[in-house]
Amino acid sequence: MEPILLYDTTLRDGTQGENITFSAEEKIKIALRLDDMGIHYIEGGWPGSNPRDLQFFDLAKKVKFTHARLTAFGSTRRPGIHPADDENLRALLASDTPSVTVFGKSWNLHVEAVMNNTLQENLAMIRETVAFLKQHGREVIFDAEHFFDGYKDNRAYALQTLTTAIDGGADFVVLCDTNGGTLPMELEAIIKDVSHRLHSYHPTPFGIHTHNDCGLAVANSIAAVNAGAVMVHGTINGYGERCGNADLTTIIPLLCLKMDRPCVAPENLTKLRQLSRFVNETANLVPLNNRPFVGKSAFAHKGGIHVSAIMKVPRAYEHIEPDLVGNQRRVLVSDLSGKSNVEYKAKELNVELGHNGLDSRQIVAEIKQLEQQGYQFDVAEGSFKILMEKFTDQFEPLFELESFRVTIEKDKEQPCAAHATIKISVGGKHEITAAEGYGPVSALDNALRKALGKFFPDLDTMRLVDFKVRVIDGRRGTAAKVRVFIESRDQDQIWSTIGVSEDIIEASWQALADSFQYKLANEKRIRSAPKTQEPELLHK
Amino acid sequence: MEPILLYDTTLRDGTQGENITFSAEEKIKIALRLDDMGIHYIEGGWPGSNPRDLQFFDLAKKVKFTHARLTAFGSTRRPGIHPADDENLRALLASDTPSVTVFGKSWNLHVEAVMNNTLQENLAMIRETVAFLKQHGREVIFDAEHFFDGYKDNRAYALQTLTTAIDGGADFVVLCDTNGGTLPMELEAIIKDVSHRLHSYHPTPFGIHTHNDCGLAVANSIAAVNAGAVMVHGTINGYGERCGNADLTTIIPLLCLKMDRPCVAPENLTKLRQLSRFVNETANLVPLNNRPFVGKSAFAHKGGIHVSAIMKVPRAYEHIEPDLVGNQRRVLVSDLSGKSNVEYKAKELNVELGHNGLDSRQIVAEIKQLEQQGYQFDVAEGSFKILMEKFTDQFEPLFELESFRVTIEKDKEQPCAAHATIKISVGGKHEITAAEGYGPVSALDNALRKALGKFFPDLDTMRLVDFKVRVIDGRRGTAAKVRVFIESRDQDQIWSTIGVSEDIIEASWQALADSFQYKLANEKRIRSAPKTQEPELLHK
Repeated sequence: MEPILLYDTTLRDGTQGENITFSAEEKIKIALRLDDMGIHYIEGGWPGSNPRDLQFFDLAKKVKFTHARLTAFGSTRRPGIHPADDENLRALLASDTPSVTVFGKSWNLHVEAVMNNTLQENLAMIRETVAFLKQHGREVIFDAEHFFDGYKDNRAYALQTLTTAIDGGADFVVLCDTNGGTLPMELEAIIKDVSHRLHSYHPTPFGIHTHNDCGLAVANSIAAVNAGAVMVHGTINGYGERCGNADLTTIIPLLCLKMDRPCVAPENLTKLRQLSRFVNETANLVPLNNRPFVGKSAFAHKGGIHVSAIMKVPRAYEHIEPDLVGNQRRVLVSDLSGKSNVEYKAKELNVELGHNGLDSRQIVAEIKQLEQQGYQFDVAEGSFKILMEKFTDQFEPLFELESFRVTIEKDKEQPCAAHATIKISVGGKHEITAAEGYGPVSALDNALRKALGKFFPDLDTMRLVDFKVRVIDGRRGTAAKVRVFIESRDQDQIWSTIGVSEDIIEASWQALADSFQYKLANEKRIRSAPKTQEPELLHK
Repeated sequence: MEPILLYDTTLRDGTQGENITFSAEEKIKIALRLDDMGIHYIEGGWPGSNPRDLQFFDLAKKVKFTHARLTAFGSTRRPGIHPADDENLRALLASDTPSVTVFGKSWNLHVEAVMNNTLQENLAMIRETVAFLKQHGREVIFDAEHFFDGYKDNRAYALQTLTTAIDGGADFVVLCDTNGGTLPMELEAIIKDVSHRLHSYHPTPFGIHTHNDCGLAVANSIAAVNAGAVMVHGTINGYGERCGNADLTTIIPLLCLKMDRPCVAPENLTKLRQLSRFVNETANLVPLNNRPFVGKSAFAHKGGIHVSAIMKVPRAYEHIEPDLVGNQRRVLVSDLSGKSNVEYKAKELNVELGHNGLDSRQIVAEIKQLEQQGYQFDVAEGSFKILMEKFTDQFEPLFELESFRVTIEKDKEQPCAAHATIKISVGGKHEITAAEGYGPVSALDNALRKALGKFFPDLDTMRLVDFKVRVIDGRRGTAAKVRVFIESRDQDQIWSTIGVSEDIIEASWQALADSFQYKLANEKRIRSAPKTQEPELLHK
């Protein structure tokens, strides 16, 4: 089957999304990861629209991509001027990318009612812009903005914008469903018609660029591929304006695994989840757990029936093998779980059940009780491990809290000042100390580290990488119960812990204490176990 | 066009999703909202699987639904016994619902390798179960679990499970893509074949039940409708196991607005966003801003070009009118914005620009600066209003902070104790007071309220309904900068405010102070303005 060219616009269209912002340096980091993934085109930004994108293209000049072509995005020339006099086009050339993408209007409504332009001048803008960029040696991709809406309003004109771009020398024309309102059945029919007409005119290959306003961006992209598109535009995690762009983290595995259309090598496909997480972290957004293929829940099983089935035959409830996309199976523990979930989990976390006369059925009952109070162990496996150890009398606390006091003071417009005093005991020895911090949790964290540091020098390698607070029942306002979730890591592992209380400091303390207990217990295990292999980077 | 029956399984399949839990009472509340929306079938739970679902059906006996049929879910009888001896089926009957849904295995792999059953006994289980429930006067919906995988493995057997259910008297057979691995093109082809074969056997209507593992649940549902399905199963917000179920909040407007398939009345369609939010709040999950149709960003415009266009011609960048689904257009302000965004926003928020010689271009520059520090004004329009007023010298603080001190103490296993002292001034008068709280933010909130209450008795109506904390750069651990977001409401309005600092208390203070300033300024405006109309419930 003919391979598909992947065109990523996370760095340009993706940043139109609410809450999505990247610095120029972050864009470079993402571009390198996209290159490493085997993406064919990386649209870096719109150098004519903002200084950050100019800076990105400057930085990119020093970067060597092994696989991807970098492309700069811009619009057709302004009406009534020569392309060489258009500063936007000059900025495009100055970006010095091998490829350039220009968008032009394909919908008469936009040309006339929005731009106050004539249909004729719009065509001249398209042709001259493409020709000008070709003269300067660029590969030119023409984005036909609002193509499908234009086709429905004025088919002849919409098609003419494509043939005009081809006349100008465009290497690709891309059909854009800019407003995201087109359904797959009509999109496929339109593309079949366009493909037929275009190819009787000239064999220029065409691409697809969809938006997710109907929840159909992925479906539309693969329908377009079925109808002959050879280039697919999208963003990592589907970031983009309004409801987002087509999500490449879904489209790539669909093309590779379900449609037999080569686009990235199988060994690159296994990096998909990491890439999704990387972009997620860089955008600093909460990852969407149920994102197809790459989400944390994509292969997570909660119902008791499902769990007992996948333990026998994984494909009974999994449409692909999770490791093909770098993901993994997870078994969740909740009040919907049967004992098979707990047993699976205990094995995974190295906890022996059956001590103390407690069996997994009783543990399930206890979990139900705690989930009633607001705990959620499916997102805090570190705390769940400690909990199971406590239930089965296997928990050996490596430190104990005697007391702490945290104070935060503020004077008029001065910033707050926070400090904490803490007293702990380790193996019968007491330690009392105090620390400042950037806030109360930081002060407490610092004080605890300082106190523990006297006993456990290995703590240096551990750091907190995420901290989330969620009000459990908002109706109670600031008196509501909160759930604090902490993700920590060292060089070998990532682990997550949880605390629940009406007091954010109490909840943070629970999660912090669990996190340190988890780390210290692990260090102890590693030191006492014969070292047979390198510890893996695990999500626990 | 033939109407489509909507079948909601938020309360059953939805709760298989990671992080999704509802109490029996919450389920009742959601069921009433689904009824009010005009959903035809509401699957309340699986009475045989857990005590909460039993409790739900008990509570539901006292509830009158005006439109919807309540349905209870269960499996076919256990192998080798009479249906009357199966406790799961007895629990189904005891639920006393007009409709019952039973699932049976349609995939030979599940029958043989997972259940260790024979293909023949599985058919008997289906036929006898359906017949038994029919004898007890129930409408019976048969869910053919894993139908599409079964069809691909052993077509004759998969079809036989359907005709067997029809032989037993099933009122509907539902084709389930349980693992979510089927693409729309193959799904549509399979349904066309099945529909042809089924209807030559018996005119039993059929439905579709899809999962989103390929990001195609919605596309598959509408493809099935195109191929003849008359019942669509899904959940509100697409909640469900792994990557979720088909999202009814997307499917409903697609059917009504794009496919001309009647399913809910237009006046109910305008409740869609509220329904989505209600289920979201009840599940206590962060709402997905970019959810099609109902998300907060679904009609949000950030790019400067888009904003100037929609100000002229809304359909230039909107595929439907937002109010058809109870949503609204939003213009975002960010460093990608041009001055038209700021001007649109200022008008919407009643802030006059141009005072103090500052124009909107300068405000854009200031915003870029603050967003660099971690503020996000697109999600905190209350703070943005105050910010614009400060820039244009229109801000009149209704109180000022002199100082506060917050202390949190913990002794061994005792819970934390938090208290705050605060000193404020209002119009030159000082007030110092102290309060306890469930945590430091609650103590500070209480102390501030107590102090302000002396001057502003109207504050009673205001409460905080959401509180979020996000670490901006996790790499700095607990010393990282945090962004606190607070949503507050009174009887008339909802408004959101933001604070950013390394200290969670400082950030919370900024957001709290903005929230109270916003409220007090609003009260002042209402009192001083002639009352011409009831204030609307606005999202600000």
